Amino acid sequence: MNLKNDLLLRAARGETIERTPVWLMRQAGRILPQYRALRKKVKDFKGLIANPELACEVTLQPVKELGVDAAIIFSDILVIPEEMGLPYNMIDSVGPRFQKTVKNVGDIKSLHVCDGDELDYVYEAISLVKEDLNNKIPLIGFSGAPWTLFAYMVEGGGSKTFSKAKKFLFTESESAHKLLDMISDSVIAYLQGQIDAGVDIVQIFDSWAGVLSPEAYNNYSLPYLQKICNAIDGVPIIVFAKDAHYVLEDMKEVKCDVVGLDWTMPISESRKRLGKKKTLQGNLDPCILYSDAADIKLATEVMLKEFGSQKHIANLGHGVYPDTPLDGVKCFIDTVKQYKFE
Amino acid sequence: MNLKNDLLLRAARGETIERTPVWLMRQAGRILPQYRALRKKVKDFKGLIANPELACEVTLQPVKELGVDAAIIFSDILVIPEEMGLPYNMIDSVGPRFQKTVKNVGDIKSLHVCDGDELDYVYEAISLVKEDLNNKIPLIGFSGAPWTLFAYMVEGGGSKTFSKAKKFLFTESESAHKLLDMISDSVIAYLQGQIDAGVDIVQIFDSWAGVLSPEAYNNYSLPYLQKICNAIDGVPIIVFAKDAHYVLEDMKEVKCDVVGLDWTMPISESRKRLGKKKTLQGNLDPCILYSDAADIKLATEVMLKEFGSQKHIANLGHGVYPDTPLDGVKCFIDTVKQYKFE
Repeated sequence: MNLKNDLLLRAARGETIERTPVWLMRQAGRILPQYRALRKKVKDFKGLIANPELACEVTLQPVKELGVDAAIIFSDILVIPEEMGLPYNMIDSVGPRFQKTVKNVGDIKSLHVCDGDELDYVYEAISLVKEDLNNKIPLIGFSGAPWTLFAYMVEGGGSKTFSKAKKFLFTESESAHKLLDMISDSVIAYLQGQIDAGVDIVQIFDSWAGVLSPEAYNNYSLPYLQKICNAIDGVPIIVFAKDAHYVLEDMKEVKCDVVGLDWTMPISESRKRLGKKKTLQGNLDPCILYSDAADIKLATEVMLKEFGSQKHIANLGHGVYPDTPLDGVKCFIDTVKQYKFE
Repeated sequence: MNLKNDLLLRAARGETIERTPVWLMRQAGRILPQYRALRKKVKDFKGLIANPELACEVTLQPVKELGVDAAIIFSDILVIPEEMGLPYNMIDSVGPRFQKTVKNVGDIKSLHVCDGDELDYVYEAISLVKEDLNNKIPLIGFSGAPWTLFAYMVEGGGSKTFSKAKKFLFTESESAHKLLDMISDSVIAYLQGQIDAGVDIVQIFDSWAGVLSPEAYNNYSLPYLQKICNAIDGVPIIVFAKDAHYVLEDMKEVKCDVVGLDWTMPISESRKRLGKKKTLQGNLDPCILYSDAADIKLATEVMLKEFGSQKHIANLGHGVYPDTPLDGVKCFIDTVKQYKFE
């Protein structure tokens, strides 16, 4: 059952690659006319991710349209808080809103560790995608990181500062650790479920890493990433702690294979701080894709050259923005695929 | 006309200080009961900053209540875009909203460089504050940095990604530079006006620095900070480029006296990257002030020790959050003022 194109997996494991693999965070979504057409018929985002056939269809859209080197299962990081006992609504052009939030230790007691079984619909979508892909390219599974999920659960939605979530850390430290541990156990069960269903590699998104100080990150995020990475078995792991530039030295000690960089992290300096062992993923500024083809090509080539020909997975430094022109996206992907290292 | 307490100015100029001076970004504002009481009577934020007597009153409130080592004139960074030709509204618990935005080179042609005279009401407030302070402590003037003001002018308000403003940079580079230059000239006139009116030191806030890549920052922000710092004469300058951790090496070349750090920037590493010449300002996580007194004291002392006894101005790593308990704020300030270096 060898993959026809296993560039991404070989890059992740630090094996020799002939060219740099490429995929985009949020490649399945509003950048694609196929997705926008589907969403005209299926208005309900949560209904979409809960329907394995539709989730499979959306997952495969960028594979055909963009020619990426990996698919990523179409889902949402907030399925974990929901299964733990905190339902949410996804409101168009606003984002997620939780119906209730975690305010104290009593609220934590009403939650439970998710054993992963409740998320069968994701595993089913994974099986369908794997079947359709027919070993053409790898499939990426994913989860939110404990701190990021915790931040949503306390805050109740997005936030500029996540000051409520951080206040909880600094005033209810013991309860915070308890909840972070419960989330971690849920994430482990969920990722293992995805692996059992067939994903070839997983990514952990710590999207709100950047609001924490180095001390707070070491206290409230890193130990739980460690716990998850130690528990996960069988596939390579990508950790993306957005804006947590200060954490690169400590990432050395996390049992993951790939570390994601955002566009504020200088490539050579990041490589130096992380050491030579791990593969890097990233990190073009998504806004560069608004430029014309010549500028996108130039910026992508500069990026590729600085990362070097090995131990790199090309990506943006964040999920692609919904209003990005498709031609810009394709120019980025094609530039990576055609680039020849001297 | 010597100041009775000139600790902040001596720290800024790198002269010997007996203890670390302390003030807070956004110290005049919702953390103070006096301010909240006044806002019950004066609902209109823009009316408040346009009224020299009231702006003076608000500026002085934290001086009496908190015992800070500096006052900062109560105003708003968006007075510059407004005087250039883009009026805005300040909407409670939403933030600023511009009535029209900059979309193309035509929109830029309808704007003008502000010569500073239109902002007489700020200078008048400064004169009143200086009179009331009676040389007790220094008064800080301020402005937004060109990139941050540009970002608001194109985006029309706050944003998670500032992708519209960045799109403008990457698709209309020449026009972007033209507008950034016009903003810079306006900022120079405005800061010089504040200095003529009596401020003892100025701070330039590059609040949205963190959404740019190092390359983009070097192209679209740093040259304009340089231009301003080269033009300003007579008082020390603080530059605070929030989240722009990658810029510290380049800040060495900017003609400013103090560089602000946010709480994601490790202190010792930042000092190493910036070199020994400049004074550092910052950088406690504002959320620490939600903790109890013992934790605030400990975190503040750890911070002070790492910065060292010289070339440091104590502050938070961001403006204090409006719902911060006053006791927490006072604990931070008192800890700084009482700390004895070994």
